[in-house]
Amino acid sequence: MTSRRILTRLAGAVTPDPARPWAVDFIEDAAIASEGGRIAWIGPRRELPAAWRDAPEVDGGGRWAAPGFVDPHTHLLFGGDRSREFNRRLHGETYAQIAEGGGGIRETVRATRSATVEELVALGEARLAKYRAKGVVHLEVKTGYGLELEAESRLLEAYAALRARGWSLDVTLMPAHDIPAEYLGRPDAYIEDVASAWQPELVRRHPGVARFCDVFVERGVFTPEQGRRVLESGKALGLRPRIHADEFCSTGGAELAAEVGAASADHLMFASEAGIRAMAAAGVVPTLLPATTLFLGMKDYAPARAMIQAGCRIALASDFNPGSCACIDPLLVLRLGCLQMRLTFEEAFTAMTLHAALSLDRPDLGHLHPGAQDRVLLWDVKHPLDLVYWMGEAYQPAPAFHG
Amino acid sequence: MTSRRILTRLAGAVTPDPARPWAVDFIEDAAIASEGGRIAWIGPRRELPAAWRDAPEVDGGGRWAAPGFVDPHTHLLFGGDRSREFNRRLHGETYAQIAEGGGGIRETVRATRSATVEELVALGEARLAKYRAKGVVHLEVKTGYGLELEAESRLLEAYAALRARGWSLDVTLMPAHDIPAEYLGRPDAYIEDVASAWQPELVRRHPGVARFCDVFVERGVFTPEQGRRVLESGKALGLRPRIHADEFCSTGGAELAAEVGAASADHLMFASEAGIRAMAAAGVVPTLLPATTLFLGMKDYAPARAMIQAGCRIALASDFNPGSCACIDPLLVLRLGCLQMRLTFEEAFTAMTLHAALSLDRPDLGHLHPGAQDRVLLWDVKHPLDLVYWMGEAYQPAPAFHG
Ligand SMILES: [Zn+2]
Ligand SMILES: [Zn+2]
Repeated sequence: MTSRRILTRLAGAVTPDPARPWAVDFIEDAAIASEGGRIAWIGPRRELPAAWRDAPEVDGGGRWAAPGFVDPHTHLLFGGDRSREFNRRLHGETYAQIAEGGGGIRETVRATRSATVEELVALGEARLAKYRAKGVVHLEVKTGYGLELEAESRLLEAYAALRARGWSLDVTLMPAHDIPAEYLGRPDAYIEDVASAWQPELVRRHPGVARFCDVFVERGVFTPEQGRRVLESGKALGLRPRIHADEFCSTGGAELAAEVGAASADHLMFASEAGIRAMAAAGVVPTLLPATTLFLGMKDYAPARAMIQAGCRIALASDFNPGSCACIDPLLVLRLGCLQMRLTFEEAFTAMTLHAALSLDRPDLGHLHPGAQDRVLLWDVKHPLDLVYWMGEAYQPAPAFHG
Repeated sequence: MTSRRILTRLAGAVTPDPARPWAVDFIEDAAIASEGGRIAWIGPRRELPAAWRDAPEVDGGGRWAAPGFVDPHTHLLFGGDRSREFNRRLHGETYAQIAEGGGGIRETVRATRSATVEELVALGEARLAKYRAKGVVHLEVKTGYGLELEAESRLLEAYAALRARGWSLDVTLMPAHDIPAEYLGRPDAYIEDVASAWQPELVRRHPGVARFCDVFVERGVFTPEQGRRVLESGKALGLRPRIHADEFCSTGGAELAAEVGAASADHLMFASEAGIRAMAAAGVVPTLLPATTLFLGMKDYAPARAMIQAGCRIALASDFNPGSCACIDPLLVLRLGCLQMRLTFEEAFTAMTLHAALSLDRPDLGHLHPGAQDRVLLWDVKHPLDLVYWMGEAYQPAPAFHG
């Protein structure tokens, strides 16, 4: 890790600049110096400082260097297979109809509860390998398909095991992802058990594993008041709030995120104008999930432009999950950000790197400026714009320094 | 080609049934008999006729067999690179603004005119290899980026050369794709030259190469009357009409397609109800291009459900082209058909196989029933629905009998 190396023979390097909001540098014929696993210098190769001129070189092969993607919203671990249910939806049944019949998330919960930690770790390894191959170097991962104390505990154990195997993860505790069958009709009782008993017990059993807590605030699931109870309880345990907010209608989730000082509020398809202003003022990162909009067959993507104009620093994420977005594909998220949310390349790219890292309190990820981790990816494209323009290409980047 | 072979050890086979409109069979533990390059029998393996029991076996490896996709609308050959223009569009310029400044299709035309036949063939080979890797076994390919006699002639020569190298293509003559700079403000003069001089001359020079003719009927391009002139002239030369119709507004393109007996009318985002009824009555195949809708950032996909309800047999196609859909990805088209056009898997799959072949008068493609070509693909999935459900997976099928 003390090794000094220079990445050269690059077509260029593309990176957000943490010092200048929304700025993305396209540096042609760039060089990147790395020391001890951190970026030490980046710039045009001809300006490389003399002290670096005889460091060992890594050949960029004429490719474009970029920071790895950060994915700040995934439900990585779940059991079972919902493709049969999926066909029912294509044949006209709604998500709600399927859920009422015991399908949907309940089916996933049954399968997740019956999985061993070893089985969960194996599922996680396979999915993380897909993320890595497609350029994601760090992920947020949630519990929430256990919905009972022991199953949620096994999910945390599996995430801890995946971290121990070297995967770069931030873990979010989310037993309040849905109302489990055991508590049907008694959401207040469930919230009370989660807030007063489960969260403290899970933090006690798995110290240092979870950094965040989360709750699904939505009509038919949890109210903002119930959400507040869970998030305040989490904060008292040292977990920073995130929140699933305003996905299918506006229930004040964005406002709640601002009130509790959440790191991020996610989905936000129906966030109110007041909620958007409140998030901007409180520094909440709106985390938008366009692949979910596509998967659910909805037309209207979250109002990214209005959020940017209000002063928010938005992030984009995959929302990988079995019910509403069975999709590991960061380039699709980038493309939807540009093509359907009408972001510029610079905006969408920043949302998947710097701002995604920001929503996870990770200043050392999502850019290539000094101090960042040197998890640099090499893309075999003529220009970074090709990643969006050639919409059907399944580009897979190579790691520059770590192989 | 007289070889008799049985494809067995399949998870199953999925195929439309040409004898039953919209029916798709999912045959578990299937067997498929091939003789002389044609399907001779398909069914559950236990029902295999005695005469086939000792034929040589091909191991399906536990995968799902399916007919290869047919793509009935591509602009395969064009020169140049429009990614810079693309970023201008992301930064807020419209397609029309870029076209007015000499960008857009005009830039592609300049690059295509300056390409040699050898360069065009090399571009075509690379693009066709992508299509093949993703499961497309037959394509319709258009001229139309030459827009002058000699350049259109070189495109036909390149398509003929690609066919001679074994690629399975149907060629469409489309000099009336846009108004070239030389005829600006004189669309009638251009149409007259195309109809009375270029089309006959191109057919004379390249006998048997083109099977179809096409024209872009749209506000600001060609009127239905101009379209009729081109298509009637093509018909007199033995070319069956196709038509780019009602993409950005309703100008009567669908009605014109029915009137001239077109094999297909394509795009149709704004087809009128009368136009849809007319296409159904005339047996015109509406060919819908959902990846273009996505790429252009539009919200509303073509009204597939209304067309099916009116009795149309719709097809889905890629519309690969440099301006409005730089995308070779049949699975994305299938997924958009299901997720955004709200087709069932069976409908979208039929639209990309049997009906796509129907629009090209190819009864020997797009299904696995006796008489079809044995271009069978093997997909490594638990069930064909996985192709849609796992939205981020870049599945690549293997050919069963060839390759
Ligand atoms: Zn989620
Ligand atoms: Zn077209």
